[in-house]
Amino acid sequence: MLTRMKSAVANFMGGMMTGSSNVDHFGGSDLPLKYPYTRPEFLGLSPDEIECSADHISRPILILKETKRLPWATGYAEVINAGKSLVNEDQACCEVVVVRRRPSDAVPGLTFHYWGLFDGHAGSGAAVVASKLLQHHIIEHLREPNNHNLTPTTHRGITRTASLRGAAGAPGSPSHPPPTRFFTEKKVQHESLVMGAIENAFKEMDAQIERDKAVFNVSGGCTALCALFLLGKLYVGNAGDSRAIIIRGGEVIPMSTEFTPESERQRLQFLAYMQPHLLGGEFTHLEFPRRVQRKEVGKRMLYRDFTMSGWAYKTIEDDDLKFPLIYGEGKKARVLATIGVTRGLGDHELKVHDSNIYIKPFLSCCPEVKVYPLTQYEHGADDVLVMGTDGLWDVLSNQEVAEAVTCFLANCDPDDQHRYTMTAQDLVMRARGVLKDRGWRIANDRLGSGDDISVYIIPLMYGNRQT
Amino acid sequence: MLTRMKSAVANFMGGMMTGSSNVDHFGGSDLPLKYPYTRPEFLGLSPDEIECSADHISRPILILKETKRLPWATGYAEVINAGKSLVNEDQACCEVVVVRRRPSDAVPGLTFHYWGLFDGHAGSGAAVVASKLLQHHIIEHLREPNNHNLTPTTHRGITRTASLRGAAGAPGSPSHPPPTRFFTEKKVQHESLVMGAIENAFKEMDAQIERDKAVFNVSGGCTALCALFLLGKLYVGNAGDSRAIIIRGGEVIPMSTEFTPESERQRLQFLAYMQPHLLGGEFTHLEFPRRVQRKEVGKRMLYRDFTMSGWAYKTIEDDDLKFPLIYGEGKKARVLATIGVTRGLGDHELKVHDSNIYIKPFLSCCPEVKVYPLTQYEHGADDVLVMGTDGLWDVLSNQEVAEAVTCFLANCDPDDQHRYTMTAQDLVMRARGVLKDRGWRIANDRLGSGDDISVYIIPLMYGNRQT
Repeated sequence: MLTRMKSAVANFMGGMMTGSSNVDHFGGSDLPLKYPYTRPEFLGLSPDEIECSADHISRPILILKETKRLPWATGYAEVINAGKSLVNEDQACCEVVVVRRRPSDAVPGLTFHYWGLFDGHAGSGAAVVASKLLQHHIIEHLREPNNHNLTPTTHRGITRTASLRGAAGAPGSPSHPPPTRFFTEKKVQHESLVMGAIENAFKEMDAQIERDKAVFNVSGGCTALCALFLLGKLYVGNAGDSRAIIIRGGEVIPMSTEFTPESERQRLQFLAYMQPHLLGGEFTHLEFPRRVQRKEVGKRMLYRDFTMSGWAYKTIEDDDLKFPLIYGEGKKARVLATIGVTRGLGDHELKVHDSNIYIKPFLSCCPEVKVYPLTQYEHGADDVLVMGTDGLWDVLSNQEVAEAVTCFLANCDPDDQHRYTMTAQDLVMRARGVLKDRGWRIANDRLGSGDDISVYIIPLMYGNRQT
Repeated sequence: MLTRMKSAVANFMGGMMTGSSNVDHFGGSDLPLKYPYTRPEFLGLSPDEIECSADHISRPILILKETKRLPWATGYAEVINAGKSLVNEDQACCEVVVVRRRPSDAVPGLTFHYWGLFDGHAGSGAAVVASKLLQHHIIEHLREPNNHNLTPTTHRGITRTASLRGAAGAPGSPSHPPPTRFFTEKKVQHESLVMGAIENAFKEMDAQIERDKAVFNVSGGCTALCALFLLGKLYVGNAGDSRAIIIRGGEVIPMSTEFTPESERQRLQFLAYMQPHLLGGEFTHLEFPRRVQRKEVGKRMLYRDFTMSGWAYKTIEDDDLKFPLIYGEGKKARVLATIGVTRGLGDHELKVHDSNIYIKPFLSCCPEVKVYPLTQYEHGADDVLVMGTDGLWDVLSNQEVAEAVTCFLANCDPDDQHRYTMTAQDLVMRARGVLKDRGWRIANDRLGSGDDISVYIIPLMYGNRQT
């Protein structure tokens, strides 16, 4: 994601890399850290190993040690960026989580498997905190007493009720006298309760980061991508530009969509249109194919408003000379000239450089949750969920990843539990590439990713075995 | 759609059907009509025929006369509702339209084929006006001088420009000094210009209805579904709950999505959350599975907010006793207890019954435009675009329609130009059903549609021939 951060952040990063400052990666605050900077706990690295891993020149690929084992034999690999930030700002967490009805209960209730991936920017604080705590917020929401341990709910009933001005779903034709009004309560599936728990857990996590900032140094922001396996179903929640795909029988099933200035243009323009004060008088919510120049006032130019997918012409006015809310294409697209990802956690204090315009109102902490009914399918040893930060997907397509994974696993000993970590390592290698005269290069002499790269490979057959 | 209108409208309709009032279907205004009420021009009906067609008991199916012919041998059929409104509030229009660079130009410019379908509610005025004028707004937008007759545009160039605080898409790593900033202008495809023209034409049409209401009686509102064939591509614009599908080789390709309180819940809740005054203190933007009762204050109940696809629990407060912004399920879902469709034209004066709460701010006149690259495919005589108002789709699924159409066309003489109208008639018949003791019944003794039903069957092979 760092390639997506703008000059607001770029300046201190440039400065940091030339040695003028090396404290800023923790946010330049006098407050203590809530958690010390670290790499994912399951890697089991010593402080020395963590320091060695942060070599921006050689960029060693870290993998799960053979002595460590994650649930479901999950594979994991990561590599640091090529110099864009002092530390690797990706974070990860993987756990089997037990939800007790009350925290003090001896008897365990529900159990779920959890994988989290967080891509930090403008500091490592938010990503570290979220990697430690997001799952606990999910637990809190699943513990809701009314959830009855998520046995399929039966919120259904015929209820007679007073209705506002006789408005509640009256059946029949209005030409007959209205019959007594009955209505059926909406049925809510247990799947919707898990989705709601994940959605609200993200919101709570974001709120906690904001609260924590009063007493701790929680720098920057982060994307969050998590997967949960619960009662036979796989839930993938995503807020940001990381990505999860399932590879089943060599075919790709997307399990997330990215939230970027381009994919969220209409939401952001709509918000700015309704709350123009958020633009501080310096930005316009309209989009133009390029910056408008003063000499073009009065001329016709293409534009897009929040209601439009297509483009049309308008006569340029003075207001159109303001900088566009969304500007740039692809990886260079930015909101308020500052940030290239539009959902995530943290960033509460992020402002447009040298201004009092806050970015946060435009960022959403709400994930999109997709559900995969895992146990409805049989899965072989080569069927996996791949979760990766944008460092992976910036340079490899879904199809390339699927082919690499399928090919690599086919050449592994099916009984080797380390095969998924080897596959993750292979993917990180393919995305990072090798250092040549002209920088990091991957297949066909394309540019490798200079970003932090983190990859989970999660075999799905363990889900079939578990139920 | 009338089945979707609520008590605000239901009262006068009930009254109307029992004879207590029969002027209200034109809106009860003292102003003159802009256009007299009529049926689609291409049906060529006499005033007597129009009156006879409005028989709510026998519900005769009107079809295109054999002496009339629409572009591309388009088929059309319609039927009036079973008594929900005095007149058929659906309207339709089909034309070959010539865009001249200037209205006075002798030389024609661009030509496009146009089909429009409008489903009125709470009066027939908006649907009649839109059926007469929407295509002219599209013409106006396509006539934009900068469109260069829509030859593929070349809005591309390398431009050097000043950037706001150095923020414009600077390539390269921030660790190097920023290079001189160049950027590429966004490429805009000619397809996007047509989409933009359709989008803005809907907005203009809606604005004109609002203006016209100062001097004319333009009652109610309407959905709008239109198809354009232009330069080898088929564009389908939809604002409302009508639907278009392509049937190609017996397979269904959806060409629109419906905009209803359920499909647009999150947009509407977001708007209400940001502009709570629009709820007049009487509604809550939160959704609950059923009405909350006063005795439940303090208890936990399921809810959904604008950020959520899933459900979660909250403690009920006094504010939650207000009527929900979105209420009801399926065809009975309503916005502000009033309207069951969330996009369309008109409705500027529609209010919540017995209140000063306007519905219009929640309604969008902006269509979703889908593009089908028609000439990239070969089409046989049985490949068609089906456009229908919700009266059709309420009782027949896409699959049922595709099977009926494919089966019917297979049994027609392929050289009979009237075959598409016969197919439309067959569909209307299948959706209306036959009158039995217990009302209108269709196959398997299901309830037939009591709504107005209008259907176009547009053979696509003519598009292949035309380019």
